[in-house]
Parts: sequence; C-alpha cells; structure tokens
Amino acid sequence: MTYLEALNRRYSVKKFNKEKKVPAELIANILEAAKLSASSLGLQPYELIVVESEAVKEQLIPAFYNPSQISTCSHLIAIVSKNNIGSEYIGSYFNHISETREIPLEELGPFRQSISSHIDRLSEEEIMIWADKQSYIVLGNLMFAAALENVDTCPMEGFKQVEIDRILNIDITKEKVAVTLALGYRADEDHFQRFKKVRKPNEHLFKFI
Amino acid sequence: MTYLEALNRRYSVKKFNKEKKVPAELIANILEAAKLSASSLGLQPYELIVVESEAVKEQLIPAFYNPSQISTCSHLIAIVSKNNIGSEYIGSYFNHISETREIPLEELGPFRQSISSHIDRLSEEEIMIWADKQSYIVLGNLMFAAALENVDTCPMEGFKQVEIDRILNIDITKEKVAVTLALGYRADEDHFQRFKKVRKPNEHLFKFI
Repeated sequence: MTYLEALNRRYSVKKFNKEKKVPAELIANILEAAKLSASSLGLQPYELIVVESEAVKEQLIPAFYNPSQISTCSHLIAIVSKNNIGSEYIGSYFNHISETREIPLEELGPFRQSISSHIDRLSEEEIMIWADKQSYIVLGNLMFAAALENVDTCPMEGFKQVEIDRILNIDITKEKVAVTLALGYRADEDHFQRFKKVRKPNEHLFKFI
Repeated sequence: MTYLEALNRRYSVKKFNKEKKVPAELIANILEAAKLSASSLGLQPYELIVVESEAVKEQLIPAFYNPSQISTCSHLIAIVSKNNIGSEYIGSYFNHISETREIPLEELGPFRQSISSHIDRLSEEEIMIWADKQSYIVLGNLMFAAALENVDTCPMEGFKQVEIDRILNIDITKEKVAVTLALGYRADEDHFQRFKKVRKPNEHLFKFI
C-alpha cells in the first residue's frame, strides 16, 4: 500500500469495532510519529494524553457531541496545548538542546534570546492560538502514521471544553485540550467507509504561480 | 525506508541546494497528500498557492525574516486560510457531496443545517482561527508526504503578513496566508542536518491513563 493509497483509505470513522484493540506496538509507532512532528521554534508546546482506560473513556462519552466514536474506539488521544511557555519552559528546552547536541549553553545564547523575545511579545491568548496550531501538526502526523499502520481514526473537535478538561485533570490556568483523536478499527456496519471521498477539485484547491 | 526513518531524517532545512529542483511528479504526489488531509466538517477552508516562479520567489525574499530558505528552495507552498465560509461556500460544498456520492440534496438537509448553524455561531475572527488549524493539518501532511518522497522541507511562520499577502494577491477581506512550506533538497553545507534531533523525553510528552 503506498502512502496515497493509505490516505485514500482513511476516512473519519463514525463507529469502530469495539472488540478490536490496536496493538501496543502500533500505538507506540504512531506516538513516535507525533513526537517527530515539527513545531514552531522546536518548542513542542503540547502534551498527549493517551486514554486506554475503559472507565475514563466511559466518563468522557457525555463530553462529546458525537459519542459513538468514544464509546467504540480502542484508544483516545487528547492533544493538550500549553500556553505557559515562559522563561522556565524555554530554559529547560535550551538545557535539553545543549545536552543533546553537546553545545555549550553560552553558544546558544543568541538563539535563546531571539526565541524569548518573540514569545514575550505574545499575550497568553496569542500563545494558546499559536500552540493550538502546533497541536494540529501533531494531529496530522498521528492520522497519517495511523493510516500507514492500517489503524483507523476519527479526529474530533466537537467536545465540551469544560467537561473534557475537568475529566482529564487539565490545569486550565496553563493548558487546554486542543483536539482529540479516536483510534481503532472501523466497524463493518459503518457505511461511511463506502462513501466516495469529497474533495475540492484541484483547480479550486491549488494555484500555481 | 520506514515512515519513522523518514520522519527522523526530516529536519527544518536552513539552506537548500539551489541547483536541484523537485520533480513535478513528486510535487503532484505531495499535493495529493495535502488534498487528502482531514478537515473539520470536511470544509477544507483553505487554498494552496504553489510558487514555482523564480521571479515571485525573488519578490518574496524580503517578506521573510529568514530568507535563506526562500532564496534556495525549489518550490514554496503558501497555505491560505479562508474565513468566507458562508452559505454560498457551504451550498457549493453540499452540491459537491450530492454529486460525488449520488445522494439527493434533500437528504443532506439535516447535515447541512447542523454545519450552517455551527459556522453561523462563529465570528469572522473565530472562523479564521478554526481555518488556520485546518491549514496546519495540511502543513503536517505536506511535510510527512515530502519526507516519504525524500524531499526536504522547512515550515515557515516567520513572514511579514502584509507583505506576503500583497505579493501573492491575497484578498485580505476573506483570506490570509496561514503558513508556508519551502521544499527542495538540503544543501550539503547546511550543518543543521547533522545535529541530533531534540525532542521532549516520552515521560514529558505522553501521559497514559
């Protein structure tokens, strides 16, 4: 299967086969793809909560407007955006760069300065909007990798923010659930899998100059 | 090369090999991956401008804070987010669903109604923030597909909004450049390709519950 075949096979699952769990090894690969996502300035302003517990999935059902994916999926991943990207966060990022690449911290000073002054200019709300966008690159990587692993998914934005943040113990002073992704295997009776994909024709989507 | 090897090989290129162009066939595959991106409610609130022209790339250089990618890349893709997702846009989307899936328009009424009432509740600014997030899924797909095609990339947010929108003839009453992606082949002298990847350790990135 080429990657374009895998992406063509992908669709937003409405109902998963509740009996079929995604093997831990595939989940690990898919999460590794998320980890390797690009992020603005390399800051990775997010965290991923991987819900495996049936009890927690059960609790989450009323937090979603379309509950059929949550009640049938194998795993639910919540991508949590962070806006507490202050000097402590940036400092620990630079310590990590320095250790990983064996570059003295002092040499990284100008790069650190430019990142700090960029972030310092943003309000907390602007940082959250920026962080959310980075979280969506992660969402893209998760769906792409899952498709390559023949694992089905459904990205879900339709949740009650207060409810989901509460159930997942989110510290709402500095983070929030940006978006979620249900993973599993399509139920045979989910007839959406047999619908033709609807996409804008190329002439409305691409412009070459 | 597995997809995880490809993602590990990927890095944000600082300087491309100016002499090496990405073949049209690979660009077409990478764009097809963008087209197959998931988007909220399937609305694809974006357009992609693919800049091949050397003259336009030249014009764009001063619009970027880090110009070395723009002056050396083979192609530059600008993902343009749209906030004019009104009844006309949604109407044409539903005509398209009806034709593609051979479902009478009337049967799609309730789905259309729920999408319209959701979008109607959002301000123009909120629609743009929502559209931007969808554009970042496209960005993720473009980078992922390029990595699989052994094509190098650099995602770039650091541009002067007014300048880039003007040069690309964006109608700023309803759209804006959300983010850009430079594509090409890494220059051998770009020493960033030999740096170790810096990522948060798993215990800071993932939480399993």
